[in-house]
Order: sequence, then C-alpha cells, then structure tokens
Amino acid sequence: MKKQAILIIAASEKDANLYYATRFIAPDPFVFIQTNGKKTLLMNDLEIDRAKSQSEVDEVISVSKLAAEYLKRYRERPTYVALISDWLKKKGVKNLLVPSDFPIFYADAFRKKNFKMFTKADPFFEKRVIKTPAEIRALTVTLRHTEVACKAACEVIARSQIRKGKLFYRGKALTSEDIKKIINVALMERGCVAQHTIIAPGVQAVDPHNEGSGPFHANEPIVMDIFPQSVETRYYADLSRTVVRGKASPKLKKMYAAVREGQDIAFGMIREGADGSKIHQAIVRRFEARGFKTGQMNGRMQGFFHGTGHGVGLEIHEPPRISPGKDILKAGQVVTVEPGLYYEDAGGVRLEDMVLVTKTGCRNLTQLPKVLEL
Amino acid sequence: MKKQAILIIAASEKDANLYYATRFIAPDPFVFIQTNGKKTLLMNDLEIDRAKSQSEVDEVISVSKLAAEYLKRYRERPTYVALISDWLKKKGVKNLLVPSDFPIFYADAFRKKNFKMFTKADPFFEKRVIKTPAEIRALTVTLRHTEVACKAACEVIARSQIRKGKLFYRGKALTSEDIKKIINVALMERGCVAQHTIIAPGVQAVDPHNEGSGPFHANEPIVMDIFPQSVETRYYADLSRTVVRGKASPKLKKMYAAVREGQDIAFGMIREGADGSKIHQAIVRRFEARGFKTGQMNGRMQGFFHGTGHGVGLEIHEPPRISPGKDILKAGQVVTVEPGLYYEDAGGVRLEDMVLVTKTGCRNLTQLPKVLEL
Repeated sequence: MKKQAILIIAASEKDANLYYATRFIAPDPFVFIQTNGKKTLLMNDLEIDRAKSQSEVDEVISVSKLAAEYLKRYRERPTYVALISDWLKKKGVKNLLVPSDFPIFYADAFRKKNFKMFTKADPFFEKRVIKTPAEIRALTVTLRHTEVACKAACEVIARSQIRKGKLFYRGKALTSEDIKKIINVALMERGCVAQHTIIAPGVQAVDPHNEGSGPFHANEPIVMDIFPQSVETRYYADLSRTVVRGKASPKLKKMYAAVREGQDIAFGMIREGADGSKIHQAIVRRFEARGFKTGQMNGRMQGFFHGTGHGVGLEIHEPPRISPGKDILKAGQVVTVEPGLYYEDAGGVRLEDMVLVTKTGCRNLTQLPKVLEL
Repeated sequence: MKKQAILIIAASEKDANLYYATRFIAPDPFVFIQTNGKKTLLMNDLEIDRAKSQSEVDEVISVSKLAAEYLKRYRERPTYVALISDWLKKKGVKNLLVPSDFPIFYADAFRKKNFKMFTKADPFFEKRVIKTPAEIRALTVTLRHTEVACKAACEVIARSQIRKGKLFYRGKALTSEDIKKIINVALMERGCVAQHTIIAPGVQAVDPHNEGSGPFHANEPIVMDIFPQSVETRYYADLSRTVVRGKASPKLKKMYAAVREGQDIAFGMIREGADGSKIHQAIVRRFEARGFKTGQMNGRMQGFFHGTGHGVGLEIHEPPRISPGKDILKAGQVVTVEPGLYYEDAGGVRLEDMVLVTKTGCRNLTQLPKVLEL
C-alpha cells in the first residue's frame, strides 16, 4: 500500500475534528498532517509560538521557513498547496485521507499534484465518539453550568405575577427575550457561550427550532432548550425543560406525562449494542398508544417529528443518533434523550437529559428536576 | 454556455456566505441553489417552517416531499445527492459554481452525476465585501457595544490599587481572566458573543494571539483586543486598545506614539482605489524610521509582524486585507486599522479602529478614546 497521511486544512475554531486532533484553537485555517501516528502542524508566524506551547502534536513547522527553503531550492515562490505537497512528497506520502468536508479547492489542487484523495465521513476520528473520563467530566461541568442557568430562569418565571393572563416580573411584561438574557449571561459568567437558546412559549414551540419571542402568558407551556459550549474545554451540554406558570391544561399534562414516559423508555433501552432506531420507534409507538399521533395536520408537522437523541461532545450534534436510522450505541458515548410532542392546540413539550451509555445501561448525567407547573 | 447554478451545502451557523445569501440561521447543513437569480432552499421537516418564515429566498422546498416523489417515480430511495441532482437536472442545470470550501465528498458525488464543478474563492458573493447602509449600521451597533465593554474594563483597571507592583481590585489580585469576564458578560448583556477576547499583559502580548492570563502588574502594557458577534444581526466588531496602570516606560511611550502614527498613516491613505500593501509598507517604513525593527530576535518574531488590517462583516476576518499582499480598496468596505509593535523587553502595543472606506478617504466608525496611562 502506498504511504498515506491524514490531512486537515481548516480553522480549528470551526472544525471539531481538527481541534480534537490538536487541542489547539485558532481562528484562521492551518495545516494538520498525521503520518504513521506522528502529528505535524504547519503554522504561520502569527500562530507558531502559541501552537508550539499549546497544541498536543509532535512537531510544529514554520510555513515561512518552508517557503524560504522552497524558494532557495526551486527558485520559485510556492503556492500554499505546492509547499504542503513538497513536504508530503519528501515524506513519501502518495495518498491523502481527508474528512468529507475537506475543501474542494484544496482537494483538486492536491489531485493536480498527483496525490490520491480518500474521504472519510464522521466520525473521522473514531475515538472521538467514545468519551474519555476527562471528556465526560468536561461535558458534565458544562451541563452543571447549564442547570444553574436553567434554574435561575425557572425561578424568575415562578416569581412572576399573573395579571390578565400575562406574566409580569418587577412590574414589566416577562418575555422570551428576558429569559434568554438571564440564561445566556449566567452562562457567560461561568465561561460558557450559549447561542440560539430556545425559550419558546405556546404555539411557537411547535416549530422546534423557533427560538421564541415576545411576552409569556399564564397557563401556556414554555419550552426551554439550552446548549452552551465551554470556552475553556470546548465541550457542549444540552438541556431542555418545559414549564407552565399557572395551571397546565389536561391535554398538556398528558403530553408531559407521555414525554416523561418516552424518556423512561430510552433510559431503559440505552446500553452498549442497542440500536438507536429501535429506541426511537418504541417511543413513537408509546406516544401513539397514548393518543399522540405524528404527521401533517393543518398543513404542518405535528406530534413527535424530530429524533430522540444525538451525541454531544466538541459539537452540539455529533454521532451517534437515536432516530429513525439504524445506529448501534457503544459504551462511552454521551447522548441526549429528548423526546417531544408538539400540537397547535396545546403548544410544545420537550424534556432533554444527557446520558452516558454503559455496558449494561446508561447513567443520567443530568441532575435538574423536572417540574411542569411553576 | 451550459446552464449553471450556484450551490452551497453547509450549516449557515458556520458559513457566512450561506447566511449572506439566505439570511437564515440553522445549526445543521441545508441546501441553497441559485439559478438565474432565483434562490431556492431544500429543507428538512424540522427547519422548513422556520425557513419559510425567516429566510430571504424565493422558494423553500421540502426534502421529504422530494424524496417521496423520487421514490414514487424511480422506485428507489434517493441519496441526498441523488435528490439534489434530480432537482437540478429537471431545471436543465449542468454546471455547478461552488465556494472553495465546498465539501470534497459532495463535489465528487456531483461529478459522478455528470455535473461540472467550478469553484470560486472568497469573495464568493462580490457584493458581500461592499457594505450596505444597513450593514454599516449593524457593524456600528456591535462596535458601540464593544466600546461600552472595553470602557467598563478600563474603568476597573483604572480603579485598581497598586501594591508591591501588582494590581488589586476589591482586595484581590486583578487578573486577565477577571477583565475578560467583565468584557464578555457586558457584551452578552448586550446581545453580543465575545470569544477568545485577548487581555494580554506584558510580554504575553508579544504573541499577538495569546489570549492572556494571570495577574496584572503596574507599569506594564495590557493589550485588549475584543471582537464580538451580534447574535441578532451576525455582524462583528473589532477593537483593540493598550493601557498601562501606572507609568509607561520611555520605550513604551515611544512605541505607543509610533503605533498611533501608524494608524494615522493608514487613515490618511485609505480610500477607494488605494492598495492595501502600500499602506502596510508605509507603516512598516515609519516604524523603522522610528527605530522599531521587525524580524527574528532571540528566536522569535518581534516588531510589527501581522497585517495592518482586514475586512469585518459576517466574519471577523474577511476580504480585503491591508497587508504585504496587493489588495485594492473599494468604497463601502469596512476594514480594521490595527498596527502593533511587540518587543520582549517592553511588551506589546496594538491600537485598532474600524473604518469605512469612502471615495475620497475613510470614516472612523470607532469613538472610544485612546489613553495609554490609567
């Protein structure tokens, strides 16, 4: 077999595989090469000192030094790709293994230099899916901060006053925007960045990615979905709760009970070797048995029409999936369990915990209680 | 010429071109196609309602509906690429124009379906470089929030007490981490996300991307570089200031004066048609005339070894550049002006404003004063 190298060219700020391989954060693209298990970075002058001190690789090489050597040898200024190609050829590399999202521009340029390109879908680094104890700790720390923020938000909602069917707090109408700010600021104070926090009251939640807006009403469900990233560790957490200030309607109470049951079904089935699609289907069936159908109603999707769960790590959505597609769970994975039900006449209910898959079952990493009525 | 379509498959959360084209934010990849100026999105069920109400495109098509039609017609479940290809072929499209960072996996799959792939480097959408009045307003709003946060940080530094050469605030050693938290929380309160804020005291700043850490000392320069993104508008700002609590050394005062002069050179030269590389070189020459050389000293880069400026918009770094490479400025661009000087025996100085390029010069969008000694 011809000699192969792993190649990634990306900004690790936006590329979790590159951050995973290097543990080095940079806002602009840089070059990562792995040959025979040896990790090399090619860095520009601006980042090289930081890369040497912060990255977890075997060698850090200066692009400008390589460029000077190239100019001396070939009497020609190299392009970025010529420089990398030259370095790879000196190591005897002929084949390049790249992630599926490797840029077409670089792929075509390396092909012109006679490299064979092989792509690999995520999980590009298989180990990334199985969390180490240190990674589980990092995920749990982010989750604890998320719970604190969610609790702070719930306390404000609980202390709000009901006047003419609307919620008021400190004399002003309480809004989705107010609660988002409380959560996002509390998280930033704890070194976590929350973006697109969902605080969706009433019918808004029937679109599960609607971030929510405007004033809250009494007796309507408010779906809260919070998924911050730790600035320090880069690991995410994902947490959803649904609350009502006042009294939940009978239908809403039944929906809430069904969603909790759905979570319990997942908690009972998740273990090494379990198929995510079977877990998902079991929840869908239970919802149907409880009278909660899924499908197009009134021209829009209603019922339970998103996946049951997904892996969480350096990305908020990563393998595996607990969804209609087959996916076999493995011990050491950290996944969300987040069934939901959404109807135009009642609003939405979603409950989401993060669990660690084990050989014999799962361990819920989430501690925040589930309370519907505040 | 064969019929061409622009194609982007990405998560707009991470892809500024896609957000620019659609004004729609989603955390997971979706499909954008532009043919004869008509913009189409292919969306999954989870995002389709939101895409219909929030995106600025001409049509939003359901992927699951397309998949059902495909299955009926060809009696075969389509892959994602087969589905998109089928739709494109029905429109007569043969050629696909994609950004340079279009994923190799999709590129190869479309080539197998007999599409010709053409790539275009940034600026992929040329108009994105020229900011509209609304975009300039959005950039300025983010900048004002950034100035408020920077001012709050400077006030804490100014109020700190000097004891045995160290800074104390409310009885505790004042650190880089404290100031970062003040800034990042103040920005989150204003709906802006700041990450990797640089608060680099003393010699730490000689590595311009070192984020800084640990306690502050009196009489040492502290480089502050703050570059948040507005959650609402997605537009960034970029601001740097350098301060000393106590007395600046004579060398530091000269460096500060030279960097201010460097900014003034840029302010005087920036205008429609100016070449960024000439502006950069003029600053380098002035620094040398003032005795501030650039190059390897003591095994590391010292002096002025980063670019003078870059475009700011939906990305923190975007075209044009004011740097050693030729780049002709155009009216309507918003660029940073951020010369700096860094020496191991004095620490770093960087001053950064954002300016709008006009036909006859430039307009400084930044209002925060520059004060060295606090």
